Amino acid sequence: MYRTHNCGELRLKDVGKQVSLSGWVQSGRDLGGLTFIDLRDRYGITQLVFSMDDNVDLCERARKLGREFVIAAKGVVNERSNKNMNRETGDIELMVDEFEILNPSKVPPFTIEDDTDGGDELRMKYRYLDIRRNPVKNNLIFRSKCSLEVRKYLDEQGFIEIETPFLIKSTPEGARDFVVPSRLNQGTFYALPQSPQTFKQLLMVSGMDKYYQIVKCFRDEDLRADRQPEFTQIDCEMAFIHRDDVLDNFEGLTRHLFKSLLYVNLDEFPRISYDDALKYYGSDKPDIRFDMKFTELSELAKGKGFSIFDEAELIVGICVKNVNLSNKELKELTEWLRRPQIGAQGMVYISYNEDGTLKSSIGKYFTEEELNGWKSVLNAEQRDLVLILSGEKERTRKQMSELRLEMARRLGLMKDGDFKPLWVIDFPLLEWDEEEKRFFAMHHPFTSPKRDEIEKMMSGDLETLKNLKADAYDLVINGNEIGGGSIRIHDRELQEKNFNLLGFTPEEAEKQFGFLMGAFEYGAPPHGGIAFGFDRLCAVMNNQTTIRDYIAFPKNNQGKDIMIDAPDTIDDKQLDELGLILKTVNNYQ
Amino acid sequence: MYRTHNCGELRLKDVGKQVSLSGWVQSGRDLGGLTFIDLRDRYGITQLVFSMDDNVDLCERARKLGREFVIAAKGVVNERSNKNMNRETGDIELMVDEFEILNPSKVPPFTIEDDTDGGDELRMKYRYLDIRRNPVKNNLIFRSKCSLEVRKYLDEQGFIEIETPFLIKSTPEGARDFVVPSRLNQGTFYALPQSPQTFKQLLMVSGMDKYYQIVKCFRDEDLRADRQPEFTQIDCEMAFIHRDDVLDNFEGLTRHLFKSLLYVNLDEFPRISYDDALKYYGSDKPDIRFDMKFTELSELAKGKGFSIFDEAELIVGICVKNVNLSNKELKELTEWLRRPQIGAQGMVYISYNEDGTLKSSIGKYFTEEELNGWKSVLNAEQRDLVLILSGEKERTRKQMSELRLEMARRLGLMKDGDFKPLWVIDFPLLEWDEEEKRFFAMHHPFTSPKRDEIEKMMSGDLETLKNLKADAYDLVINGNEIGGGSIRIHDRELQEKNFNLLGFTPEEAEKQFGFLMGAFEYGAPPHGGIAFGFDRLCAVMNNQTTIRDYIAFPKNNQGKDIMIDAPDTIDDKQLDELGLILKTVNNYQ
Repeated sequence: MYRTHNCGELRLKDVGKQVSLSGWVQSGRDLGGLTFIDLRDRYGITQLVFSMDDNVDLCERARKLGREFVIAAKGVVNERSNKNMNRETGDIELMVDEFEILNPSKVPPFTIEDDTDGGDELRMKYRYLDIRRNPVKNNLIFRSKCSLEVRKYLDEQGFIEIETPFLIKSTPEGARDFVVPSRLNQGTFYALPQSPQTFKQLLMVSGMDKYYQIVKCFRDEDLRADRQPEFTQIDCEMAFIHRDDVLDNFEGLTRHLFKSLLYVNLDEFPRISYDDALKYYGSDKPDIRFDMKFTELSELAKGKGFSIFDEAELIVGICVKNVNLSNKELKELTEWLRRPQIGAQGMVYISYNEDGTLKSSIGKYFTEEELNGWKSVLNAEQRDLVLILSGEKERTRKQMSELRLEMARRLGLMKDGDFKPLWVIDFPLLEWDEEEKRFFAMHHPFTSPKRDEIEKMMSGDLETLKNLKADAYDLVINGNEIGGGSIRIHDRELQEKNFNLLGFTPEEAEKQFGFLMGAFEYGAPPHGGIAFGFDRLCAVMNNQTTIRDYIAFPKNNQGKDIMIDAPDTIDDKQLDELGLILKTVNNYQ
Repeated sequence: MYRTHNCGELRLKDVGKQVSLSGWVQSGRDLGGLTFIDLRDRYGITQLVFSMDDNVDLCERARKLGREFVIAAKGVVNERSNKNMNRETGDIELMVDEFEILNPSKVPPFTIEDDTDGGDELRMKYRYLDIRRNPVKNNLIFRSKCSLEVRKYLDEQGFIEIETPFLIKSTPEGARDFVVPSRLNQGTFYALPQSPQTFKQLLMVSGMDKYYQIVKCFRDEDLRADRQPEFTQIDCEMAFIHRDDVLDNFEGLTRHLFKSLLYVNLDEFPRISYDDALKYYGSDKPDIRFDMKFTELSELAKGKGFSIFDEAELIVGICVKNVNLSNKELKELTEWLRRPQIGAQGMVYISYNEDGTLKSSIGKYFTEEELNGWKSVLNAEQRDLVLILSGEKERTRKQMSELRLEMARRLGLMKDGDFKPLWVIDFPLLEWDEEEKRFFAMHHPFTSPKRDEIEKMMSGDLETLKNLKADAYDLVINGNEIGGGSIRIHDRELQEKNFNLLGFTPEEAEKQFGFLMGAFEYGAPPHGGIAFGFDRLCAVMNNQTTIRDYIAFPKNNQGKDIMIDAPDTIDDKQLDELGLILKTVNNYQ
């Protein structure tokens, strides 16, 4: 037996017991006649003690143990004279009688500490060592607990977990598929699913009215920071429901996860329309941990001779509470806004001073009385700072959104542990691409318009179509899109119309999605669903901004696993069996 | 709201309530002034009643509803005068006031009944209709419950579920990989995992000492009956353990699943060596629901002048209790054995009659006294039938195993609901291929020899190597291999030796598995694990022989999904982006 206990469980009550522990040598130190070794495993660290008085040979062997050696040690649990209050096992130590080296270790390429000296690439290459570090280990344990809580909750609600296939069919619409050449049917390919969308809809047609799955999905995209070619979704679908049934269920799930894993009781989730989200936050994923809602100022600010405002499509301001910036700070903020990433032309400010005076960059164009008159609209008081941007509507909203977030960051309003979820609803159904002169699906081609817009969709003109609302919704927490979904089309005719609007010929629609439209003809119930990004959810719940450390073996930004060195070349025999020829001799051979 | 209740939950206590139900029209019948419709959903069937007296128009609309129409109906729950005891809702019916057709249905291509008239291919093409049938639906629900129980149990035991990657590296050893061409790194390929083997071992190196995952695996094999290119494993690994820790844990898991899902208390699992399994059952996955163990008879039967026995490498008999076959039946049984699938030359029998006499096909060569003397060895009594085969050892054992199973089938000894698990242990480490003059791994190249055989492995000659025992084990239930695993090598030198024995050059071993051997140099703990075939486990727990109906969307025997028509051709643009050319114009374009 390698161990009777783990390295995190011995306490004062165990003093006097004969036990054995196995684990990794975290560190060692010699103090006169004693040698101390911190032995680590997944559960914690226990101090081992070797005494020169008791056993010279054993103690000398212990002194030769290197970092990360794996050993098994036997001995008696002893109360420590010098207790370590920062460690759960800090009251005791193990007086070692006997130990065995189970495996030695080379010196690890970075320190196995909470704060390591290893860079990203090095940690990726030796991921198995990186996972020994508490932060990464704890993330993976959190993820495991979270997935189990998801399952317990959904099971309680009558959801059935059903595995959908990974080897499916490629559909060129949307993001790029990863494909898998078929050997038994040379010249044809499977595709890896970007999501189980069509299968979960078929399950609704099959009567499995509450489906879920925690499932890997795949997208062959040009990788941006914090995107992974394979990622995990909590994927759900329900039949005989309306939008609010989905929102209620998954608000309940979210609430359960925060409660059971973080002991956080979330308030009810506000619901805000897509249009309002843009109007008040300039973003369809607003962070509502702090206020600074947008106020549109055209009515007050136009026609006073300030040409920048007069010519602007939108004039929008935010009120920053209890802030007074120096001229230098205001100038620096304007520079920040002018960087190409943001691209604002300039910024207008009004500083309502404590003494009742004000300072403003547009004092030339507006009287003090006028600017004081803006306060009530802006919800501003003395000591507040109002920041105003103007210009083309969409661009100005984006810039103001960035400014709002930046002010919150600077003022420390994005507090860890403060979680403010909300639902964004009533998304547009279709996005018009002015260059290509065609529609794209805002969500995906299976999303239903809102019930009272179906008729408009079947017969409306271009302008009507541009304004159609979808029965689609996103869950947003602290400015992160956690999930999204929609009520689906369950009627063949409406689905055909949607494909038609999205530029599919009837033949293309039939070839790619004929199986789904066919299924709609055999009694498809009304249905809808949602998917949460599981990696993102785990990260957001832990106030993290990157998903990579919630994934045991992530790919780097080039889509490579640098630990196992994948992707890699394959044998000519394999290529031959698949009936494939490489177009060019690649650079990796 | 589409429904207040589902179609399986209304009871006598609900009589008088105003409710609404949604579901599919299972069947309808008109009886004078009344029309009855059976409305079905996932939860059951409820009878709807429409009365000509109450509402002619409504009743006439109801009479036009076709099979599988989806409707929502409102009304009052009524006690039935004519109760249906075979149905949980059979005490009540819904007197319908109002209903809406949510979606009509074409006539389904096969009946949605427990026993359908649909053939396999048709049911696969319309899988979404097939899942509406109770047998398939219940299988999927069972599978979902089973996976949740697996997770609950392993979580209780401290196991962490960790997702391993799907886009990994191809390793030509073993079965064929499915590969995924990389677009960002043209000319290179990912492979889909045949199992998470190397990753779970790396997780052990990383200190996550109890890992599990319910995970899809992929094998591009020439498909045999009841094989699927993608299948699901319960995959586990543990560190700081010996073989019996793994067996105890997963015996516990199996026991928990049978208890919680089937209310079956399993006996303790016997453990039998691979050698004994072959000796006593002729198979490494014996069905021990019945006895008929093999008895080797060489000592008794040789040297009596019966040349067939005298020349045989093995003479082996089984005792079939309380059976007396006629000459015709014995002849038919011999014919059955001679079919090419079995390939036996002939069969010897001894029938110990009730009256103390005996009848035997070898009466010419052996005295009655001799044959009576065999009884105690064979554990035979009066009224028993002994069947004997002889010849080359391995082949004869296989034939006898088939005969044993056939006799059990004929005698009804393979009882549904009777579950007899066992562990087969001490498998050979290496299999010698006489034609290729090389070793193959019996389990896989990461399997450790038994501890006391490591030295023999490092330095043994060919004969020694052929007889090495692995620390490997299989779980067998009722003749089905449910799972298998082993203690792994955790030492670089031993792993290199194993690759060498398996015919890898050091360069090949390094290219393919260098990352794993490298990890062994940084403090790899002793570890081992197991994987259960989840599809198979579900089928066996339900006394089924085929896994296909425990998979929501299976592939057919050609690896095709005929519902969605995958695999399929892909766009030239996709091929181009991947840097691939098809060798021949395929037949599918």
